[in-house]
Amino acid sequence: MKLSIERATLLKAVSQAQSVVERRNTIPILANVLIEAEGDTVSFRATDLDIEVVDRANAMVERAGATTVSAVMLHEIVRKLPDGALVSLTDDQRTGRLSVEAGRSTFSLATLPREDFPVMASSEYQSNFTAKAGDLRRLFEKSKFAISTEETRYYLNGVYMHVADGDEGRALRCVATDGHRLARIDAALPENAEGMPGVIVPRKTVNELRKLLEDDDADIAISVSETKVRFATPDLALTSKVIDGTFPDYTRVIPAGNTKRLEVDATEFAKAVDRVATVSSERSRAVKLNLEEDKLTLSVNSPDSGNAQEELVVAYGDEALEIGFNAKYLQEIANQIDRENAVFMFNSSGDPALVREGSDASAVYVVMPMRV
Amino acid sequence: MKLSIERATLLKAVSQAQSVVERRNTIPILANVLIEAEGDTVSFRATDLDIEVVDRANAMVERAGATTVSAVMLHEIVRKLPDGALVSLTDDQRTGRLSVEAGRSTFSLATLPREDFPVMASSEYQSNFTAKAGDLRRLFEKSKFAISTEETRYYLNGVYMHVADGDEGRALRCVATDGHRLARIDAALPENAEGMPGVIVPRKTVNELRKLLEDDDADIAISVSETKVRFATPDLALTSKVIDGTFPDYTRVIPAGNTKRLEVDATEFAKAVDRVATVSSERSRAVKLNLEEDKLTLSVNSPDSGNAQEELVVAYGDEALEIGFNAKYLQEIANQIDRENAVFMFNSSGDPALVREGSDASAVYVVMPMRV
Repeated sequence: MKLSIERATLLKAVSQAQSVVERRNTIPILANVLIEAEGDTVSFRATDLDIEVVDRANAMVERAGATTVSAVMLHEIVRKLPDGALVSLTDDQRTGRLSVEAGRSTFSLATLPREDFPVMASSEYQSNFTAKAGDLRRLFEKSKFAISTEETRYYLNGVYMHVADGDEGRALRCVATDGHRLARIDAALPENAEGMPGVIVPRKTVNELRKLLEDDDADIAISVSETKVRFATPDLALTSKVIDGTFPDYTRVIPAGNTKRLEVDATEFAKAVDRVATVSSERSRAVKLNLEEDKLTLSVNSPDSGNAQEELVVAYGDEALEIGFNAKYLQEIANQIDRENAVFMFNSSGDPALVREGSDASAVYVVMPMRV
Repeated sequence: MKLSIERATLLKAVSQAQSVVERRNTIPILANVLIEAEGDTVSFRATDLDIEVVDRANAMVERAGATTVSAVMLHEIVRKLPDGALVSLTDDQRTGRLSVEAGRSTFSLATLPREDFPVMASSEYQSNFTAKAGDLRRLFEKSKFAISTEETRYYLNGVYMHVADGDEGRALRCVATDGHRLARIDAALPENAEGMPGVIVPRKTVNELRKLLEDDDADIAISVSETKVRFATPDLALTSKVIDGTFPDYTRVIPAGNTKRLEVDATEFAKAVDRVATVSSERSRAVKLNLEEDKLTLSVNSPDSGNAQEELVVAYGDEALEIGFNAKYLQEIANQIDRENAVFMFNSSGDPALVREGSDASAVYVVMPMRV
């Protein structure tokens, strides 16, 4: 293998690939990136055995070939090379080294055989469709805060992507919950997505996806099978195993009969919750909401360090209500609200609350109360 | 106590004070800040028993008084209050709480009695003089990288500030060393500083000093005794115990007979060292310097991961030399160089190297070689 490539192009490709590499590996080759050069293209492939990323870039390939080197080291080297440099990668079969040259710098890196690199088996996908990057980003970014971190409930350690009946017709829907709060985000169902099997996309995959979804208008090709999901642009493909489990029936958790309606400026609300929670040193910072006509009083009481309260002018016309929540959960939901106002629907102080973004029905959040 | 103060003024004063508070305290009152209001001034005092910071700010004091509250919590609350708010602090003797009010937010914080707050005894200082903040910052900021972190050599855990004969007359001098490298920085001796006892200023004090020294042209009043040092502006006073020990005779460490002179662009040098060091995964990243006529070759050889080399065009006219250094030490010294060029003076591959900033004699660095 022998090729030349612009430093900026190389940096982008390698940095996207190296981020799936786990920092602590018991299998040495999983620390490496597989570099394959052919035609006028070089690809960089990295995997943790659950997720595989393949990045393609244009290069001047003088001699086709393939090898693997440390992903982190290659990335560090390219990052430190001067901007605008032309980088050449040459595979020396005799010494088993990959030479990286740019200007007056020469690096000779240890390699491992390409044959040892675990390439993810290609699958039969049951469903193939295309969606806009902006829509997908919204689905995943607005739901991921609710993903559970409890490993025993592994089927909650991801976002459940499936097809459902939304308020405005058939929808591509992402749901995440940890049992304390839930997020349900809908997008218009893309053409050909009907019939897609529901899959639980793991947390790490959701995080890695962000890089693929940077450009709002990009078309993302999505392929789904019972065991795998694949997101791809012409330059970058991310394939991931899905979580092998059954996502619980979340529809039962979403309250339908809540009638007490509170409308509040989402930013002001999040800031006020953050302020009053300051006096609580405990991990589960409980904040109490007192609702009266057009007035919301937030209060926190910590026996050791003191107490705090703050009043907000809100729209509320129902009977007085006192209800407590985990401050962090309230803030995380309020931070998702893109519109000006958050709309809370309450029932009683013992029942979960429903939160919506203004009059938008495509994003719904649920949060469990706590005793205060 | 009852006073009103602008949120921005309060935030600045509290944030400077709270930063000396240690996060883990066995003595509860050390987590608190002592607030004292009198006349048209409020002061915030915090201490870790070794350093004491007192911050003064203008305030509308309605009722003089004093109390103590959690420094971190007060800082967090003020930070989260909206910009432009007017904050009132009221001490309620009956409940033993301090009430913090701003707009529609009210906080009631637990207090501890002001009598229990350990105020540092005032001292007789042997030496009192004034220096520009810019000069002091240069003395401490350029030397502190060399402070030792080895607790057994406690007398090296700070910067040795003393009066010495510099290359351009009597100087206020700061020296730090960890036995592997040394920094010696001079400034013109301020009036009345002659006769000042040499003191070892602890690392934490050096770090806290930075906030006091932000404005280059500010006059800083310095007071020194055998046991304490004090730096003050009209608004902010930092008093610190000094390290009770004898700083070793550093003059013997500074090589006088090195004749092999290398001149190199400091930024290019630092970047090249950083690049070649990438291939080494060990903690002590050894980089080898090969000097030939007007050519410097940097190289790193790591048996596991590979090797790297880079050539730099330099000014060098002496006989060929091969010498190794810890890459981190070289970078840290190169990062201190404000002028374009670093000048290295070598003797042999077994002797320490001297580094200067161009032709400036007021900053001198020494670095020990290592076998490569």
